[in-house]
Amino acid sequence: MSEKNIYADCLPGEVRALIREGKITCQTSGMCSGFAQANLCVLPKKYAYDFLLFTQRNPKSCPVLEVSDEGSRTLHSIARGADIATDIPKYRIWKNGVLDGEYTDVSSFWRDDLVSFLIGCSFSFEFELIAAGIDVRNISLGCNVPMYLTNIDTVPAGIFGGKMVVSMRPIPYDQIVRAVTVSGSMPRVHGTPIHIGDPSVIGIKDLSHPDFGDAVPVKEGEVPVFWCCGVTPQSVVMNSKPDFCITHSPGHMFITDVPNAMLKN
Amino acid sequence: MSEKNIYADCLPGEVRALIREGKITCQTSGMCSGFAQANLCVLPKKYAYDFLLFTQRNPKSCPVLEVSDEGSRTLHSIARGADIATDIPKYRIWKNGVLDGEYTDVSSFWRDDLVSFLIGCSFSFEFELIAAGIDVRNISLGCNVPMYLTNIDTVPAGIFGGKMVVSMRPIPYDQIVRAVTVSGSMPRVHGTPIHIGDPSVIGIKDLSHPDFGDAVPVKEGEVPVFWCCGVTPQSVVMNSKPDFCITHSPGHMFITDVPNAMLKN
Repeated sequence: MSEKNIYADCLPGEVRALIREGKITCQTSGMCSGFAQANLCVLPKKYAYDFLLFTQRNPKSCPVLEVSDEGSRTLHSIARGADIATDIPKYRIWKNGVLDGEYTDVSSFWRDDLVSFLIGCSFSFEFELIAAGIDVRNISLGCNVPMYLTNIDTVPAGIFGGKMVVSMRPIPYDQIVRAVTVSGSMPRVHGTPIHIGDPSVIGIKDLSHPDFGDAVPVKEGEVPVFWCCGVTPQSVVMNSKPDFCITHSPGHMFITDVPNAMLKN
Repeated sequence: MSEKNIYADCLPGEVRALIREGKITCQTSGMCSGFAQANLCVLPKKYAYDFLLFTQRNPKSCPVLEVSDEGSRTLHSIARGADIATDIPKYRIWKNGVLDGEYTDVSSFWRDDLVSFLIGCSFSFEFELIAAGIDVRNISLGCNVPMYLTNIDTVPAGIFGGKMVVSMRPIPYDQIVRAVTVSGSMPRVHGTPIHIGDPSVIGIKDLSHPDFGDAVPVKEGEVPVFWCCGVTPQSVVMNSKPDFCITHSPGHMFITDVPNAMLKN
């Protein structure tokens, strides 16, 4: 059992408090079993309309769970009492599309013009896949999910655009349909796969060298299945170069109070 | 057969051309069978972020199908070649939240700062309900669906907020579950009902006096079932008083090229 699973049965508010105190700085996969986790993208208000429109035009990549009010570090809906600037184990600061640093607390960078976008995460449907009897390789191996840049264009909006990032899970032939229907029941956490099978069709040359996360083996009789990924906004930020942006560090998510079951149709 | 059904088997582009030429000025219910129709809300760019955020926070009332680029009268996705300012049979112009007039063409009011929001319409799931063997009373009677202001608050965003508007269809007890699952398969056109049964629970005093549209009888053994309605933005505009707004006139919708089947999960 890896260290992070110590927190599997904790409530989100308890774990967020430990993160805020700096006692948890690792990845959040497997924490607060049954509760949704979220990707974060924080932008100055001048970019907020373009980015919100980008999420509307790319709902499978960027299913928005909540948008904060301008300048606010609190949320109304998905995590009461949470502080966006302290309750994620690891943040990334981006300047002009370039990664400027990683931090466990971004309070000192906060500004009155920042708007926070919380975006659904595939961790939610991974729980459902496992509950449906499907092995989720990255979880059974205790590593991060492999993520790849594709040749699929997102639909641009204002300054934002770029290629789609996907996550990959190997699925046995006889469980592919079930994997589609189970994940498809949760459109607010990426929903159905975007591609099934030959990686080269979507521009992925080598499954063993993911652009983010860790490689996992695809066994005999298994097919690589690809889902839209909440790291897409980071790829888009790198491409679109807003002067300032805060995101989570991949795998280090915001843990919400929303039960995964609430994200079903 | 009412006049409008002459156009049931026409393609969307054909009917939009007739509307543009002023040859169709009536309601669009039943036209272009199988293709989605859309509600329209056009606002100056200065309001666009607040309104887009309002739609994100109220997805069952305001499921956005497409947002135009600023100042553009054309769309990229749901209706190629269409002109937003001429292709709806009847528009409403609102000034400071007050209805200022109805027009069959709003070209002369167009401005370079206008952004158009096209929002899913219950006409799409009505086709599916009928296909599933459920009588849709307003269609079988050839009238407009009854719509009601409720006591349900929308989730506010910036200047926008107000009460939710719902549409009502009487459903026999033994078809209620099917009506929920059939409409629930189409979240981009309001999805599942918001309320089933006693109208007073959501603040509706008298079903025989709808706030918009036409009353329909609820027969013995039937239950009133309420869905979120795309007229909600008009109620919100009345409440929030932006200085300028263009909407469609209720029932006079924008006919898209999108097959209803494409709006399923």
